[in-house]
Amino acid sequence: MSDDETLPRREDFGVLRRITTRWADEDVYGHVNNVTYYSYFDTAVNGHLIEHSGVDTRTLDAVGVVAETSCRFLRQLRFPADVEVGLAVERLGTSSITYRIALFQGESEEPAALGRFVHVYVAGQGEQRATTPVPEPVRRAVEPLLR
Amino acid sequence: MSDDETLPRREDFGVLRRITTRWADEDVYGHVNNVTYYSYFDTAVNGHLIEHSGVDTRTLDAVGVVAETSCRFLRQLRFPADVEVGLAVERLGTSSITYRIALFQGESEEPAALGRFVHVYVAGQGEQRATTPVPEPVRRAVEPLLR
Amino acid sequence: MSDDETLPRREDFGVLRRITTRWADEDVYGHVNNVTYYSYFDTAVNGHLIEHSGVDTRTLDAVGVVAETSCRFLRQLRFPADVEVGLAVERLGTSSITYRIALFQGESEEPAALGRFVHVYVAGQGEQRATTPVPEPVRRAVEPLLR
Amino acid sequence: MSDDETLPRREDFGVLRRITTRWADEDVYGHVNNVTYYSYFDTAVNGHLIEHSGVDTRTLDAVGVVAETSCRFLRQLRFPADVEVGLAVERLGTSSITYRIALFQGESEEPAALGRFVHVYVAGQGEQRATTPVPEPVRRAVEPLLR
Repeated sequence: MSDDETLPRREDFGVLRRITTRWADEDVYGHVNNVTYYSYFDTAVNGHLIEHSGVDTRTLDAVGVVAETSCRFLRQLRFPADVEVGLAVERLGTSSITYRIALFQGESEEPAALGRFVHVYVAGQGEQRATTPVPEPVRRAVEPLLR
Repeated sequence: MSDDETLPRREDFGVLRRITTRWADEDVYGHVNNVTYYSYFDTAVNGHLIEHSGVDTRTLDAVGVVAETSCRFLRQLRFPADVEVGLAVERLGTSSITYRIALFQGESEEPAALGRFVHVYVAGQGEQRATTPVPEPVRRAVEPLLR
Repeated sequence: MSDDETLPRREDFGVLRRITTRWADEDVYGHVNNVTYYSYFDTAVNGHLIEHSGVDTRTLDAVGVVAETSCRFLRQLRFPADVEVGLAVERLGTSSITYRIALFQGESEEPAALGRFVHVYVAGQGEQRATTPVPEPVRRAVEPLLR
Repeated sequence: MSDDETLPRREDFGVLRRITTRWADEDVYGHVNNVTYYSYFDTAVNGHLIEHSGVDTRTLDAVGVVAETSCRFLRQLRFPADVEVGLAVERLGTSSITYRIALFQGESEEPAALGRFVHVYVAGQGEQRATTPVPEPVRRAVEPLLR
């Protein structure tokens, strides 16, 4: 990142979700492995949708398929402290949602990582599979996160 | 284990399945984390069933639910060498299958771990869920592993 | 289990540790995968030791190596509800500790799983590696859990 | 992606590494979870470095810290077929390496995912930690992958 970049803080996110770290999240270097950061993203997005949409999103016909993700790793995370996941919606399209995500740990106001996570909604199986509008319950759950 | 225990060797198993280790299988102590051994067990059993039953077992009405597992850890495993998983069936019951499993890595004839894995077959949802006979395709896939 | 077995309850454990479930803890059958139960065990034991021993146990010369684990799976667990891990010490030996563990989720008083987890303490590298007494800080952290 | 984008094929990568999928790589939707794709990336990069640098890179003073990763998910992956990971080096800087990665499964010539993975080399602990040149053995291992 450029030196004068302003990093987002906890208050820049519509919701903060708490995730407990696990012993095996750390790899041989004694810090949380890069792959695990994405499991924090995945868990925060889906946990928010299930708890705030009023439906178990796993039972909907329309499925949010992950189209694209990315992460910039700024600081190490360690077990056993909790991680707070800040969640914001950057773009709510007809059939896709783009989330901005930040991870925080401990007292630091600086994020340990900044992520991007794109869900595209599809319905149908095999050859019939096609994009479909974001289901209404999901739309209602993410609208408050628009920034 | 007692000093005079005879440990099983590769030849004591009806099938050996090869699994590639992963970077993050290792924890902060620089060896494969104990939890991951069970993912090798799980993968070998289900991989064998899918490849040798003639059906995708995930589509059957009867589901193999894991009732009990255990593992004795005898040697460390390390990334990036492959792991060979020896699979044998100790007991093929009406509705359950008990597997004996051993993990091997490298030239050593001694297993790195010895495991036990019990599948009980169930069908139906919620209150209606009940044990059901081992499906025929599964039975045929495991009979050659009986020891 | 036998029908008249009395299952332990939350109150039978010296400590209960809360773990947040993750989206990918669930496998294709829509319940937490059996392997993941062991990551809850591993996390609860090591989290307790790090937080209650007064030292970061990862920096000690003596390392708790997992010698044996087992689990009986009694009920399904699901994302996104938290899991509570009950921790008790069944045996505190010279160089080993045997933990009894139970997992609870939601309102149910019945455990979803019962586990056993054996740490053996070793020190030294390679050929020189040998069992060593349980470090004093670890001993103090687990004595209150003896049942 | 734009419709006329030309996707890379297996032959566009200097090396292809084979990874075995695991049962629990699949989530509730019956396809490999998005997070797991990154474990394939991580494993391919570190496996290549350990096997082709002539040293166990985990023992070097300079550590490759992951600074940034991204992935575009183009097709589903399923257990139990193997995944082939294509590895190329897009940029070999003084203290960083940028990898381009593609995942393939089955007969298809089209990649299931396209990734980017940036390692920055650092040495020292805590406040003293600073970027350091890519170690010579690592440089030799990745030069053949430059595209």
